[in-house]
Amino acid sequence: MSSDRPPAPPPDPVRPSDDAARALAQGLMAGARFAALATLTPEGAPFVSRIAFGLDPEGRPLSLISDLAAHSQHLAADPRAALLLGEPGDKGDPLVHPRLTLQVTARSLRHTDPGHAALAAHYLRDHPKARLYIGFADFALVRFTVQSGMLNGGFGRAFRLSPQDLARGGTTRR
Amino acid sequence: MSSDRPPAPPPDPVRPSDDAARALAQGLMAGARFAALATLTPEGAPFVSRIAFGLDPEGRPLSLISDLAAHSQHLAADPRAALLLGEPGDKGDPLVHPRLTLQVTARSLRHTDPGHAALAAHYLRDHPKARLYIGFADFALVRFTVQSGMLNGGFGRAFRLSPQDLARGGTTRR
Repeated sequence: MSSDRPPAPPPDPVRPSDDAARALAQGLMAGARFAALATLTPEGAPFVSRIAFGLDPEGRPLSLISDLAAHSQHLAADPRAALLLGEPGDKGDPLVHPRLTLQVTARSLRHTDPGHAALAAHYLRDHPKARLYIGFADFALVRFTVQSGMLNGGFGRAFRLSPQDLARGGTTRR
Repeated sequence: MSSDRPPAPPPDPVRPSDDAARALAQGLMAGARFAALATLTPEGAPFVSRIAFGLDPEGRPLSLISDLAAHSQHLAADPRAALLLGEPGDKGDPLVHPRLTLQVTARSLRHTDPGHAALAAHYLRDHPKARLYIGFADFALVRFTVQSGMLNGGFGRAFRLSPQDLARGGTTRR
């Protein structure tokens, strides 16, 4: 630390996935109750906001969002999005806490769509406070199809993950 | 809650800024030690990752990031970005915790650039653990110029903020 010459930079940190990375990523998905959502503005610029987060019965990302939010209007125009999961605690360096970026495509499920009632009931099990507004006509469930994942387990511990790596049990079930 | 008819949706939640909103937003900026950063992939899709966060001596957003990170490569190709600040605690509904979205443009300041040493010394006051890697040749300070802000103080409490609203003391100092 007191040397005038900085240490050499670390090697390229992105590694292929392994069982430990898959387990860590799936644990972050199972434990997250909110996420940062990146969307595109009408001008094509990046935007980021907070959304509620859960998993559908098949272990795929799910949220409940209001039509009034800027991100909903962005997704209606371009469904491409990204999610950041895994929140640091109050102590220590937040950049050593593991986090997961998911590149996704969003699909809304509205009150009038088939399957809404069952998925809403599932969602409320993990998000009981959403009972206050899940019935609002302007709130829709949003399902996210995962294209790819990037797990950062701390400095020098990055892994690129496939949709199969991120599916519950390590296999896709559809 | 047991009614078959959902309640009416809330009115458009975006309000003009006021002193309380400016103070809350500036407090979130002053208190944040990390942020979610949204960038654009080479395909123009949204991406989101975690970065360290601080303020420069004039109260403007500042980070320290590695060239090896995907977001650095994104910013080198397109400097448009967005930041999400304000982290929920462990208790309560995370969507009632205030958070701030900043739409920004990124500019790197590298070791060889004028002013790097002074800004690095300033950054280390709030991020002492960064001393371990701030000297790495692949780490650059990144300053963010704010274009606009959106403060969400919880359901029905959203405010659009200007760069002037977000400048320390409510005035821009350059």
